[in-house]
Amino acid sequence: MIVRGAPAIGASAAFAVAQAAAEFRGKDMRKFGLHMKDACDLIRKARPTAYDLFHAVDFLSGRIPSSDSVAEAKKIAVKESMAYADRSAEACRKIGEFGEKLIRDGFSVLTHCNAGALACVDYGTALSPIRFAHYDKKKIHVFVDETRPRLQGAKLTSWELIQEGIGHSIIVDNAAGYFMQKGEVDMCIVGADRITTKGDVINKIGTYEKAVLAKENGIPFYVAAPRSTFDSATRNGAEVAIEERSEDEVLCVGGVRVAPIDAHARNPGFDVTPKRYVSGFITERGVEK
Amino acid sequence: MIVRGAPAIGASAAFAVAQAAAEFRGKDMRKFGLHMKDACDLIRKARPTAYDLFHAVDFLSGRIPSSDSVAEAKKIAVKESMAYADRSAEACRKIGEFGEKLIRDGFSVLTHCNAGALACVDYGTALSPIRFAHYDKKKIHVFVDETRPRLQGAKLTSWELIQEGIGHSIIVDNAAGYFMQKGEVDMCIVGADRITTKGDVINKIGTYEKAVLAKENGIPFYVAAPRSTFDSATRNGAEVAIEERSEDEVLCVGGVRVAPIDAHARNPGFDVTPKRYVSGFITERGVEK
Repeated sequence: MIVRGAPAIGASAAFAVAQAAAEFRGKDMRKFGLHMKDACDLIRKARPTAYDLFHAVDFLSGRIPSSDSVAEAKKIAVKESMAYADRSAEACRKIGEFGEKLIRDGFSVLTHCNAGALACVDYGTALSPIRFAHYDKKKIHVFVDETRPRLQGAKLTSWELIQEGIGHSIIVDNAAGYFMQKGEVDMCIVGADRITTKGDVINKIGTYEKAVLAKENGIPFYVAAPRSTFDSATRNGAEVAIEERSEDEVLCVGGVRVAPIDAHARNPGFDVTPKRYVSGFITERGVEK
Repeated sequence: MIVRGAPAIGASAAFAVAQAAAEFRGKDMRKFGLHMKDACDLIRKARPTAYDLFHAVDFLSGRIPSSDSVAEAKKIAVKESMAYADRSAEACRKIGEFGEKLIRDGFSVLTHCNAGALACVDYGTALSPIRFAHYDKKKIHVFVDETRPRLQGAKLTSWELIQEGIGHSIIVDNAAGYFMQKGEVDMCIVGADRITTKGDVINKIGTYEKAVLAKENGIPFYVAAPRSTFDSATRNGAEVAIEERSEDEVLCVGGVRVAPIDAHARNPGFDVTPKRYVSGFITERGVEK
């Protein structure tokens, strides 16, 4: 959890592969290959959900040559990891340009968790269209779900929006439905940790709730993510293992215990939003259905 | 907010009327009548949403005689306020007996906020059927929404369930949909602050979200409330003013600020769950549609 956000996890994984290459001592390409295989296996185990992690490791390991010298392979690993991060930032910029067209002047946009620059290499995914709409002088307002348990909305998304001077209101996750029902939300944009071939979206816990409520209230619900988040090997969201995290994240807030001492909690970190709730995917290729 | 929970607010209002009567100095019944009218008007303004407040004031003021002596009127006020509280506790007991029949052995029940003994005179509303199912030796498990912003679920409902030895898991409000989608929730029971003639339910913020999610997942969603919560003068939930509370409840948790210093929040205290999401009302008369 030092690094969070699918694209940021992807870029970190790419750099981790390059670092593993740099750390190898010796000139034996066969041993180098075994070392890299072990390193990649280890990096793949760092987090279970964000697909960008696997995408980045596959991207890097596919580009490190197995026949040339170790010195050459190390150089290529560094170069390609930097290219991966640049490509990731560029994908987020394009997400902003394509997604911005969906946001009309005067819109209120609801977002969940933090899918901003702090979760990516730059620009963000869900926040990128919001940023570009603001650069384009559209008057917009953002409803920021605080996103319990870790409050990434209240802490990170709000901070990013303040830096850009974008007007917003933090709300408790319980209030998203209220503002939708009152007609105060024009559209939702969220990020994703993984998207299956069927279009099911694995994202921060609570995303499914907001997607159901958006559909119920006739509000478009968009998922913004680079193609590196699309898992081509998994069809259904139900196949993806959901990380259950420490109950202390629920029982304590800011280090202070809020629940009785004998109480227990369950704390799934992500949920699955089935494709039927998603109006479209904003990627670096455009708005895809 | 010293007193919370619709039935507890009702009983407190009844006692407040009796206290106002006791405080009157003099023997002039006309002046006593004016004093009581002013007192009742003031008590009605204490909280805007919970209907039990108005019900209790009407109940008491309708029983205080206007023709006999002030001394007699004071006695009756005390007696009737105690009768009101007893009747309220008895209503909650009956809610438990009727509601318990809906809970099958092995059920997982989700509840929102605190609608337990701590919100009532005794037994609670939503928690009363859960209590009686437990007394009846049914194996049950309760999912307790923590209920941001004030965390009444994590703090109060969990505490009440621990006292009874009823197994439960606190979850963030974002996770209710996750457990419903996974088939881990068999039914929902919540309380109410006000129920309109059409059957719209005004209750703690987030209730609407959980009701929509329950319907989407085919899970029965019951509202437990005494008849004193039913507002016979209001047809639609949209007519009821929703209290917007201090933004500090959202921006700070346990006295610690979690949001950036320049951030703002919106904080509606209640929401409206339209009748179509409610499977039934558990009252002291039985389970009503």
